[in-house]
Amino acid sequence: MKNIIVSGVPRPPLARLDELAGFGVATVHEALGRVGYLGPELRPIQQDTRIAGSVVTALVWPGDNLMIHAAVEQCAPGDVLVVVPTSPCTDGYFGELLATSLASRGVRGLVIDAGVRDTSELRAMGFPVWSRHVSAQGTVKATAGAVNVPVSIGGQSIRPGDAILADDDGVVVLPARDLPHAIEASTAREAKEQATREALAAGQLGLDRYSLRGLLKDLGVEYVDHEQYLEGERAL
Amino acid sequence: MKNIIVSGVPRPPLARLDELAGFGVATVHEALGRVGYLGPELRPIQQDTRIAGSVVTALVWPGDNLMIHAAVEQCAPGDVLVVVPTSPCTDGYFGELLATSLASRGVRGLVIDAGVRDTSELRAMGFPVWSRHVSAQGTVKATAGAVNVPVSIGGQSIRPGDAILADDDGVVVLPARDLPHAIEASTAREAKEQATREALAAGQLGLDRYSLRGLLKDLGVEYVDHEQYLEGERAL
Amino acid sequence: MKNIIVSGVPRPPLARLDELAGFGVATVHEALGRVGYLGPELRPIQQDTRIAGSVVTALVWPGDNLMIHAAVEQCAPGDVLVVVPTSPCTDGYFGELLATSLASRGVRGLVIDAGVRDTSELRAMGFPVWSRHVSAQGTVKATAGAVNVPVSIGGQSIRPGDAILADDDGVVVLPARDLPHAIEASTAREAKEQATREALAAGQLGLDRYSLRGLLKDLGVEYVDHEQYLEGERAL
Amino acid sequence: MKNIIVSGVPRPPLARLDELAGFGVATVHEALGRVGYLGPELRPIQQDTRIAGSVVTALVWPGDNLMIHAAVEQCAPGDVLVVVPTSPCTDGYFGELLATSLASRGVRGLVIDAGVRDTSELRAMGFPVWSRHVSAQGTVKATAGAVNVPVSIGGQSIRPGDAILADDDGVVVLPARDLPHAIEASTAREAKEQATREALAAGQLGLDRYSLRGLLKDLGVEYVDHEQYLEGERAL
Amino acid sequence: MKNIIVSGVPRPPLARLDELAGFGVATVHEALGRVGYLGPELRPIQQDTRIAGSVVTALVWPGDNLMIHAAVEQCAPGDVLVVVPTSPCTDGYFGELLATSLASRGVRGLVIDAGVRDTSELRAMGFPVWSRHVSAQGTVKATAGAVNVPVSIGGQSIRPGDAILADDDGVVVLPARDLPHAIEASTAREAKEQATREALAAGQLGLDRYSLRGLLKDLGVEYVDHEQYLEGERAL
Amino acid sequence: MKNIIVSGVPRPPLARLDELAGFGVATVHEALGRVGYLGPELRPIQQDTRIAGSVVTALVWPGDNLMIHAAVEQCAPGDVLVVVPTSPCTDGYFGELLATSLASRGVRGLVIDAGVRDTSELRAMGFPVWSRHVSAQGTVKATAGAVNVPVSIGGQSIRPGDAILADDDGVVVLPARDLPHAIEASTAREAKEQATREALAAGQLGLDRYSLRGLLKDLGVEYVDHEQYLEGERAL
Repeated sequence: MKNIIVSGVPRPPLARLDELAGFGVATVHEALGRVGYLGPELRPIQQDTRIAGSVVTALVWPGDNLMIHAAVEQCAPGDVLVVVPTSPCTDGYFGELLATSLASRGVRGLVIDAGVRDTSELRAMGFPVWSRHVSAQGTVKATAGAVNVPVSIGGQSIRPGDAILADDDGVVVLPARDLPHAIEASTAREAKEQATREALAAGQLGLDRYSLRGLLKDLGVEYVDHEQYLEGERAL
Repeated sequence: MKNIIVSGVPRPPLARLDELAGFGVATVHEALGRVGYLGPELRPIQQDTRIAGSVVTALVWPGDNLMIHAAVEQCAPGDVLVVVPTSPCTDGYFGELLATSLASRGVRGLVIDAGVRDTSELRAMGFPVWSRHVSAQGTVKATAGAVNVPVSIGGQSIRPGDAILADDDGVVVLPARDLPHAIEASTAREAKEQATREALAAGQLGLDRYSLRGLLKDLGVEYVDHEQYLEGERAL
Repeated sequence: MKNIIVSGVPRPPLARLDELAGFGVATVHEALGRVGYLGPELRPIQQDTRIAGSVVTALVWPGDNLMIHAAVEQCAPGDVLVVVPTSPCTDGYFGELLATSLASRGVRGLVIDAGVRDTSELRAMGFPVWSRHVSAQGTVKATAGAVNVPVSIGGQSIRPGDAILADDDGVVVLPARDLPHAIEASTAREAKEQATREALAAGQLGLDRYSLRGLLKDLGVEYVDHEQYLEGERAL
Repeated sequence: MKNIIVSGVPRPPLARLDELAGFGVATVHEALGRVGYLGPELRPIQQDTRIAGSVVTALVWPGDNLMIHAAVEQCAPGDVLVVVPTSPCTDGYFGELLATSLASRGVRGLVIDAGVRDTSELRAMGFPVWSRHVSAQGTVKATAGAVNVPVSIGGQSIRPGDAILADDDGVVVLPARDLPHAIEASTAREAKEQATREALAAGQLGLDRYSLRGLLKDLGVEYVDHEQYLEGERAL
Repeated sequence: MKNIIVSGVPRPPLARLDELAGFGVATVHEALGRVGYLGPELRPIQQDTRIAGSVVTALVWPGDNLMIHAAVEQCAPGDVLVVVPTSPCTDGYFGELLATSLASRGVRGLVIDAGVRDTSELRAMGFPVWSRHVSAQGTVKATAGAVNVPVSIGGQSIRPGDAILADDDGVVVLPARDLPHAIEASTAREAKEQATREALAAGQLGLDRYSLRGLLKDLGVEYVDHEQYLEGERAL
Repeated sequence: MKNIIVSGVPRPPLARLDELAGFGVATVHEALGRVGYLGPELRPIQQDTRIAGSVVTALVWPGDNLMIHAAVEQCAPGDVLVVVPTSPCTDGYFGELLATSLASRGVRGLVIDAGVRDTSELRAMGFPVWSRHVSAQGTVKATAGAVNVPVSIGGQSIRPGDAILADDDGVVVLPARDLPHAIEASTAREAKEQATREALAAGQLGLDRYSLRGLLKDLGVEYVDHEQYLEGERAL
């Protein structure tokens, strides 16, 4: 691990991030071809909140939040701070004071593959957080790490300046260059889903709408009456 | 695994299921002699909701929701869809579109031993879900499975046409033939609990109400004063 | 394990416990020098609730809540019951009836390193609970254990008569003799945090407020421009 | 749960079980159409051992092995005892004394969805065990359960008198009536695998042997040269 | 947490520890009345090894092994080092160099509620280790902790100068003052077990040897013939 | 996810990989500045084996090993196949037949962030495997994925053509360009460790060898006599 703090990371336009925030994480993940989802372990501490922003990363030692303080200085309005420990850690790296500092810089939220604390206060002040743990156990400030280097959560690479989107289903990350495509594809997907929603609400079956009956047949799936099935079981 | 879709499963009467929904999962589980609880891993995505229904099952491949689409067609008003993967999977098999389809058929909710997505939308539309995971990662439609065959969650067998009850404490399943007994026993249990509740609220101790003092004595449990206890510790 | 029930445990003054309840778990944990936190596995079943009380302990067999009934008798107004199984257990040891009994005795809440049930009812009646699991699976009353002996959760020793504080961040325990210091140190910490909060809200950086720039330098952390960094990566 | 001990369970012929033991768990699981595998959580305490037998079940309370003692009496030569707790439990239900008792009755091994102890002694005496946990924490004998009722592990139903097969890959269970088919299909599968093994060892590719190239094409999988791929990445 | 290093801890006599090492962890745990077992999460990196010694403790920060180095100086022949992190950590705190240092001081092994590395080398040099994790990820030396203060693993308190015993079933700890009783009770237990072993090997049932038939009857456990049971099931 | 198979990946020289295999994973991880360790969840199915090779990657769908078959064709002598599922999966993707195929191509081993089966056979044939799970549950061949694209395990990026090293402590990955530095730094580290080993074996303390006494003092760590410490505790 190089102990560096990288500054001057280019960001995607705020307007584009705001457009992205119009779509759900599941929708964008699909629209992107199913990449960039950070996995089911990152859960929101609040409900019914969605944010989009530009990634600033901090790579931290277990039980040590020194590099979060260094990362704050690298944050600009519209950013989302992404914190990753070098090995699994449940400690509460982040609380209401750091949130105050980030909020004062226009940062939109925190994504942390470790623990947070002051969760009640964070909800009260409206600072959104997605974390792996909640823990009152604090950290020290003693060990070097890195700011704005690539990190990884849930098998997905995350680079500074990437776009990030988070809601109740979790967090998805995409390269800034993919934002226009993501928005376009999500818009298309939503339009298509709206038509599907109406058809399904009206009673059409997915089997028909997605033409799955042939596939079931090709896979050798058979339809059996319940009575026949029970007789077969008894005969065995 | 036989790749079959079983139709024509008989259901318990809706009126009986509605009666069942008048009792909590813990109450019914007790009333049944403590069978059928699907375990602490299945958690609701909403709060303070209780449903009862008739089971339709779908057995699905990891990462593949083809058989959920086949199961929708087998669902009728008052049903609850129960989805089980053939090996552990966190993927989001189910979202708002499938919920729309089920809702249009009068289905009362979903129980899934895997992941769901669109949780905010599902809460907003009032479609209740109990799941093991929440994940934005979607699934494919490529692999055969089965509909309305027996499945198992948390060490409990679940058969199509079973009655199912779910609330904030989890999910319990019972054979349709046990419904009358379950309702009768739950009613009796609630009556008894009401008397107990009043006695306990008035200050009676469980030790006395349940006649446990003799048992404690038989088990050799001794009463010791705190000062004596500390002296004993120091003496050692 | 000695099968004993210890009575006559001295409690800290209620007034002091009420003072303690004026501070968050994370604050008190810090003020104490970071001891006594019971770990991230104990989660509240409710939100935005904080309690402080005096500890009564129950050591129970897996799947057996006999000793909770014995512990109720040892509870007094202002107490918090702390239940620990002798080996990990998810069962619902505690529900609305036991809560009714405890509430009638003025007990302020439950902390249990196992499962609870009737969670919806417990929230409705305003009885606060921190638990490791939620499970409708009940327990028997057949095996001896102990009441008011020292127990341990999350690597922390808990003694009867200790002070305990619980909120959304978890649970912290401290010896009664440390209460005055904890309150004093928490008051001082809050005052200091208020000043820090204002400074951070006004834009001061943690790097400056906590004088961390020198440390970063001592640790060999270097500042690099993004473009330079990318060039370095490409050159490798 | 009915508190019963069922006796007189019919067993499959020992000769057939011995034939079954000639095949690996993975082979039989495939031959059966992928049913009956008890999942990756059950691990052997020994290495390179395989057994087959007839199932005797014990359903036990957490921390209580009373019903294992009752189950021993129901065991006959060629049996394998399968123990399942009513909720998850790590306790060491079973050790060298119970193994001595089972061995004296000709029992071939233990499968337990909980903990065992005396593992070193069990290996030394050659009594094979598959368990979820190893724990020195013992159990009591205080609570009723059941012997030879259906149980479930890893989502699979297990009935008394079923055939069971266990090796380093885990445990698979099948109805006695399926034994002839399982042996026949496993024999056929092994013959086919031997041919495949030779072909693969000689350098034939699975892509060709299983005719997968067309499928890859149909799924839209494209072949790209590494240089082209890197250029594409850079261009983005 | 007080940042202190406590020296001059009195040890139990080596001869007594050597006697203790003549018994298994499960036996001693039973003989003690089932206290002091550190739980199923601590696993040996070697097989068929048993050690007993006197406890030296180190309380360490996540990802930081500074205090292990301080603890080495406090170790004497016959000691076992017990390392506990202040919050869960998988890092490899300990490897072959620290083992060399401990071995040169006559230390008998390591028990660590975190990770170790160089496991192959540790086995080769015959230095026994019980750990929660194996991880090549190293630690720093930057944060204060404590040596020879009480710690806790698996809900059990561990004090410097306690006796400790470890084998394939895990680790048990007891106060030095309980050593004579533990050895006496274990000797008695082994004698009794030998008689039981012979009786069980000769075919006596636990049901009879432990007089459990009456208990089963009192608990309402009924004996049912398999055919009757199946008829009952079908009739339902 | 782009569904592509990338061919023509350049490899590091075999001679350099063989040099790398002369060092342990922990040593190389340190020498690299602590990057590239794939985490404690990947465990070997064999003991005392170490391999080094060049990475070929396969990105697979949960429960589907189609792309492993495609990856085999891309493998050359000296390669190590690295398989990553798109979401967590315990299934046995890989067994003895695929190992036969890989062995015939000179592949040195498998690293898989999912399950394997035929573990006894794999050990017997000497094909080394590091996996997250062992499971007899097989997979299908129905869903597209990718070969030789970047993947991620344990927060570390892995690229085709990277060097990989695996032993009993886990797996570490490094870019091919870092091989010379890794070997040089590991050689230096080993030389230094040999001197340290001799000094420690001769009784020198790490406190002195690493000059840690000053640091302890700076951190405020105090030395206290045991008797004094106990008095302090009692006085509180």
